[in-house]
Amino acid sequence: MKFKIGQKASIEKSFSINEVRDFAGITGDHNPIHLDEEFAKRTVFGKPIVHGILCSGLISCVIGEQLPGNGSIYLGQELKFVAPAFHGERLIAEVEILEVIIEKRHIILKTVIRKSDGTIVIEGKARVKVQTL
Amino acid sequence: MKFKIGQKASIEKSFSINEVRDFAGITGDHNPIHLDEEFAKRTVFGKPIVHGILCSGLISCVIGEQLPGNGSIYLGQELKFVAPAFHGERLIAEVEILEVIIEKRHIILKTVIRKSDGTIVIEGKARVKVQTL
Repeated sequence: MKFKIGQKASIEKSFSINEVRDFAGITGDHNPIHLDEEFAKRTVFGKPIVHGILCSGLISCVIGEQLPGNGSIYLGQELKFVAPAFHGERLIAEVEILEVIIEKRHIILKTVIRKSDGTIVIEGKARVKVQTL
Repeated sequence: MKFKIGQKASIEKSFSINEVRDFAGITGDHNPIHLDEEFAKRTVFGKPIVHGILCSGLISCVIGEQLPGNGSIYLGQELKFVAPAFHGERLIAEVEILEVIIEKRHIILKTVIRKSDGTIVIEGKARVKVQTL
């Protein structure tokens, strides 16, 4: 079997203010918490934060490119937004196989995004269908 | 109380091939299922599909801009990717208040993305914290 419980993969990336702006443009999500310094100062975060869903794109990236990789079908994702990610902060997205459901060809992955100091930004689980186990 | 069970908000949007390409560039998610016509033809989908997480950006957009709107803090999101969305397909993202947890100032929303023919693309729930109820 190609996929084993405990198998991991990860990528690292930061989001620049321009990338956050581009994402706001694509989705139409212009919530000022993501781009307006003055607005963000008056919130609990103190400065603009990267959209949680944009950060989550790193999880789908590891899943699609590495584990299980190309050809896998993304069936579901649970996300808990635990801490904010600020513009330019280095993020590590890691997935780890928790369960392999042989009869359905489904894989359950633990999915975590951390900062370089270990702070968890997002945690959750994904369900993916693969072509072959 | 400003927020009531059953209250709804929605937006409509389609994602062009250029927007899908831009999202792939921002996140690094270059899975060929999203942009490569030839690759996509050989999959169960038959043609390139929009990233599930990019579609989900429409949910975060309705939450951040309309219900509960600016100043709300996105705490969690469950997503089931039920059907693929293709480039250029009109999508309607709708959120509906399921529960108001007064002591925590949390709101639980049902979150659905549909095509114009009613096909569900993504379904799930979101948890959001608001400044005032």
